[in-house]
Amino acid sequence: MRNQFKSHMMELINGLWFLKRDIVSDEYDQALFRLIADIKDQTVSAGNAHVKIHEYPTGEQCWTWQVPEKWTCHKAYLETLDGQRLIDYTHHPLHVISYSLPFDGIVSRDELLEHLHVHPKHPEAIPFLFKYYDRDWGLCASQVLRDKLDEERYRVVIQTSFEPGTLKVGEVIIPGETDESFMLVAHLCHPAMANDDLTGVVVGLEVARSLMTDLKSYYTYRLLILPETIGSVAYLSHNEDLIPKMVGGLFLEMLGNDSNHALQGSFQVDSQVDRCLVSTLKQLDPESYVAPYRMVINNDERQFNAPGVRVPMLSLSRVLRHNSPNWPYPEYHSSLDTPDIISTSRLEESKNYVLELIQAWENNQYIVNKFKGEIFCSGYGIWIDYRTNPEGHQRLFEIMELCDGEHTVADIATKLDISFQAVWQVISLLLEKSLVYLSRTPQSTTPSRSQNS
Amino acid sequence: MRNQFKSHMMELINGLWFLKRDIVSDEYDQALFRLIADIKDQTVSAGNAHVKIHEYPTGEQCWTWQVPEKWTCHKAYLETLDGQRLIDYTHHPLHVISYSLPFDGIVSRDELLEHLHVHPKHPEAIPFLFKYYDRDWGLCASQVLRDKLDEERYRVVIQTSFEPGTLKVGEVIIPGETDESFMLVAHLCHPAMANDDLTGVVVGLEVARSLMTDLKSYYTYRLLILPETIGSVAYLSHNEDLIPKMVGGLFLEMLGNDSNHALQGSFQVDSQVDRCLVSTLKQLDPESYVAPYRMVINNDERQFNAPGVRVPMLSLSRVLRHNSPNWPYPEYHSSLDTPDIISTSRLEESKNYVLELIQAWENNQYIVNKFKGEIFCSGYGIWIDYRTNPEGHQRLFEIMELCDGEHTVADIATKLDISFQAVWQVISLLLEKSLVYLSRTPQSTTPSRSQNS
Amino acid sequence: MRNQFKSHMMELINGLWFLKRDIVSDEYDQALFRLIADIKDQTVSAGNAHVKIHEYPTGEQCWTWQVPEKWTCHKAYLETLDGQRLIDYTHHPLHVISYSLPFDGIVSRDELLEHLHVHPKHPEAIPFLFKYYDRDWGLCASQVLRDKLDEERYRVVIQTSFEPGTLKVGEVIIPGETDESFMLVAHLCHPAMANDDLTGVVVGLEVARSLMTDLKSYYTYRLLILPETIGSVAYLSHNEDLIPKMVGGLFLEMLGNDSNHALQGSFQVDSQVDRCLVSTLKQLDPESYVAPYRMVINNDERQFNAPGVRVPMLSLSRVLRHNSPNWPYPEYHSSLDTPDIISTSRLEESKNYVLELIQAWENNQYIVNKFKGEIFCSGYGIWIDYRTNPEGHQRLFEIMELCDGEHTVADIATKLDISFQAVWQVISLLLEKSLVYLSRTPQSTTPSRSQNS
Repeated sequence: MRNQFKSHMMELINGLWFLKRDIVSDEYDQALFRLIADIKDQTVSAGNAHVKIHEYPTGEQCWTWQVPEKWTCHKAYLETLDGQRLIDYTHHPLHVISYSLPFDGIVSRDELLEHLHVHPKHPEAIPFLFKYYDRDWGLCASQVLRDKLDEERYRVVIQTSFEPGTLKVGEVIIPGETDESFMLVAHLCHPAMANDDLTGVVVGLEVARSLMTDLKSYYTYRLLILPETIGSVAYLSHNEDLIPKMVGGLFLEMLGNDSNHALQGSFQVDSQVDRCLVSTLKQLDPESYVAPYRMVINNDERQFNAPGVRVPMLSLSRVLRHNSPNWPYPEYHSSLDTPDIISTSRLEESKNYVLELIQAWENNQYIVNKFKGEIFCSGYGIWIDYRTNPEGHQRLFEIMELCDGEHTVADIATKLDISFQAVWQVISLLLEKSLVYLSRTPQSTTPSRSQNS
Repeated sequence: MRNQFKSHMMELINGLWFLKRDIVSDEYDQALFRLIADIKDQTVSAGNAHVKIHEYPTGEQCWTWQVPEKWTCHKAYLETLDGQRLIDYTHHPLHVISYSLPFDGIVSRDELLEHLHVHPKHPEAIPFLFKYYDRDWGLCASQVLRDKLDEERYRVVIQTSFEPGTLKVGEVIIPGETDESFMLVAHLCHPAMANDDLTGVVVGLEVARSLMTDLKSYYTYRLLILPETIGSVAYLSHNEDLIPKMVGGLFLEMLGNDSNHALQGSFQVDSQVDRCLVSTLKQLDPESYVAPYRMVINNDERQFNAPGVRVPMLSLSRVLRHNSPNWPYPEYHSSLDTPDIISTSRLEESKNYVLELIQAWENNQYIVNKFKGEIFCSGYGIWIDYRTNPEGHQRLFEIMELCDGEHTVADIATKLDISFQAVWQVISLLLEKSLVYLSRTPQSTTPSRSQNS
Repeated sequence: MRNQFKSHMMELINGLWFLKRDIVSDEYDQALFRLIADIKDQTVSAGNAHVKIHEYPTGEQCWTWQVPEKWTCHKAYLETLDGQRLIDYTHHPLHVISYSLPFDGIVSRDELLEHLHVHPKHPEAIPFLFKYYDRDWGLCASQVLRDKLDEERYRVVIQTSFEPGTLKVGEVIIPGETDESFMLVAHLCHPAMANDDLTGVVVGLEVARSLMTDLKSYYTYRLLILPETIGSVAYLSHNEDLIPKMVGGLFLEMLGNDSNHALQGSFQVDSQVDRCLVSTLKQLDPESYVAPYRMVINNDERQFNAPGVRVPMLSLSRVLRHNSPNWPYPEYHSSLDTPDIISTSRLEESKNYVLELIQAWENNQYIVNKFKGEIFCSGYGIWIDYRTNPEGHQRLFEIMELCDGEHTVADIATKLDISFQAVWQVISLLLEKSLVYLSRTPQSTTPSRSQNS
């Protein structure tokens, strides 16, 4: 089963990565349909889960935004005047900037170079560029090729069309006991690249698949697959009634490259979701790092954390630290970002971690003490001798001490600077002994006293 | 008068220290009866004060705990097979671990050593051990004796009995204007030792004696003398209606050894009691130190600070800092803890400090300004010239500035990082000049303005 | 216009500085009348502005204070017994301490020296001394003169009179849309000196003059010209109904000497006024410094910040840092404080800064987002490319992110540690594009969610 999943994630990536998945485009649609078809049968058999494809037509107002036209590049090349073809879109989709205007003509070398983009670090790579709103024509090539351009004039042909279409957002919904929703988000619109952004999508789908087999979740989970930014804005602006129900979220991206995990906090650094996910990942991947909002990398979590929405959404990736010369990873936004840099075991590991983060979120309730005073630990068989295990003893007592109906598991972990799991282990024991119960809302057990005390 | 008290504290210690004061035992009861008898006459003459002995029978449920059996050791010794007696309970009560199971038989040297406990640091001392709940048989001896055990087999005789009894808690109640109570707590259950725990008991009794002569206290004071932990749990669980009335407390212990004072904060570090006692001791004993909850030493204050109780109870002792090799003091939990290490003058000093801490607590009210603007200090004869005493001038103005009905004396002392006494001195002057009044609840005098200001 | 103001400020100073402006005195009144006359015509032509002179008779109770008598020095000198005049009040008003008792007699050299005050640092200067309440007689002279006193006895004549008078407070009122008032305060009572205190007065008047030409202010502005401390207490105690309407203030003083600006925070360090003025001055005068309440220099802002009043009033001056040997400036409280140490350009600069601080205060409203999610910046023409201007891009997004109806401009500037002006620049753009609106009260746009999120 595990091996089947593993190969299935890579299989999906291999099948979809080279598609020209521009934000509103036929091949984006193809990719989305294939992914949704892939999980649909399982949602049917799971019973309560289901999938949706939301469509937003070109020109549709989405808060301050508008859905752009469908864009297609039919043909594009760069030739010498004697017909030697130097660049051809059929060789690689990145040779044309996404949403390039059409162009057909002979240009001077100088004019060409203004429109010919190269990668700042990798001489052999074609860079990924887009001009969705600041419209212009443009080609991309390797620095190596550009350095060889010594003719005076060149022929440029870019045949692109802009026409009405529909932006599409795929949604997998796994209902829980409550309609309060935890959002998983990944974008699909980076053409002919693999780590950014397909890895987030396939990990999200595998997580959704696992969640479907567990029908007992408290929260509803919604996985969104969409074109970056405009996809999130389109979805949110057309589902405003859901926003107050969104209690938290996690954006997924760049999970196949060879780095440890990076967890980016939400705008609301003290939210329960932040405390819960941060204190849980700490133990899952001790080599991971946590950085504040906007300090790992920016993606769709911005729309969810933004004013008027304010869903505390974190972001999980394998992005290097900001001061690394290779930030976010060496092959970022270039033709070097292929399935070759992705490891199945890393995808699998990330998927498992996301599931464990979600499990912690499910468990993150207020701990209400049924006991008063300290627990008679020996009597309940949970005594840890301070003479033989002073740290375990201290931790047991520090955790019990905060079981007062005013602290969640994540609050306790954050306050004691230990992992969520370490706290949960003690809480599980107390639950088993009927010494505490869990509550989704605070239930303080502290006696009230006059103001002067 | 003072000398009489001095000798009286030592007299009590000398008379009671060698008793086998195990948690539920005849000699614990003897000690408690003598102490209560000692103060009872005075409570009668004081009129409103009184004493109680609470009894909780074996098996009684006390929250998650149960009152243990009465334990008696009738006889215990270790002999060589040829009858040479190596250890005898009649020589020292610490030779048998408290609540040891009975045992009678010939054991191999190896088996004996598993049950024969020594002190980790003092080769000559018998250690203090107890197994109240994790039942086993056991003897204690010096390392010196243990090192000489070279026979193959030994005879062990431990005749102990476990039978129904009653756990006893002594309480001295000194009523004040209000039934809001300040708790003084000391434990009495450490057999044949002096500094830990009799010094806390006798200091507590002398403090109670002094309080009785002052019938004008605002708070009610309750001194509890009890066996550690189970005594507090028994009392609290049978007096739940009093818990919301307990506005603070102080645990007393280890007050006779040769160290400065240590004040351990409560679980609620910003409570009025914490601020008041910390800012007061600072001036009483400038060499003392303050450490957070659980960071000096653990005792009954844990039950009072615990979930569902949450009385802010601090702890006063003469415990060394945690990083000291002799923590908490060299003779701790051993047969070296005798009246010889106790000084009458230190007991007297601690008693006086506790009385001053209580006086500060009585004085710790909100300061409400009857003045507006700055006070015309020259006109009231309280001017301090900044040219001749810049620090005094600044302090006077800093304190006046915080007299706004929103700060207690302790709040002001904490905010300015000066002693309670320094603040009180200025406040006394302002009271005398009718420039402020005291209030047990906040009475803000700040004009209310719109939200934008 | 600008040049006219410049010269006018110096003209006022030159005309008034040498007057004997003791707190209740004829020459204080002369100075105040001239200043008020100077602005009165303009208030009439401005239409809605007006001036008042408040009078408080000698003996009038002002909270804990009383208005003192009018004081006049008719004649004062020090002579040798053979009639050689060493000190003469007609040469310099500082030769007699303000509110000196009268004296006429022959004194020993020792007695004289007890009453003859010199400057601690400047051997040539006459110091400024006052004994308003701690009554005594006294003369002031240079250290040079004092060092030459080698006779055994001297004749002292001080003819002063104490008689009923009225303390006078000048007020310029410039009404705004609301009667919530911002207070500008300067004192006028330092005789025969210029930087301290006339510079604050003339800058305040020029600011008032400029404000009058702008009839559209939201807040009402009140400029008070008064004798230090007692003037503020007299005004406040007789206008208690106004106190809740005072939303903030700025004390002005020592604005002509050769230093950068110093801004002293109010007692309420987190008030909107504090945040607004601190974040605005930062950009106006990058060499300026900000220090907490009482940590630059003490003046009338003390009465406004005091208990029962609690108006957040800051103070602007050109005072050196507290650790400077010349604090607050070299000529402070001495006969060296003449118009010669004042520069017109510095007065003009300070006036302009005060106007800009006030402009920021007018603008300091809550920013309420009409948008949700992130703004489609390209579509609104406000996009800043992160590839060419990463800092500008980040700042744009950081500011937009805090537009949620819960933050004022000053809150955003404080949170991001950038200037008020930098924030306002972005907000102006958003206002122009109708993406936000301003509100004097918080209007949160954050969706409400359950407690666990």
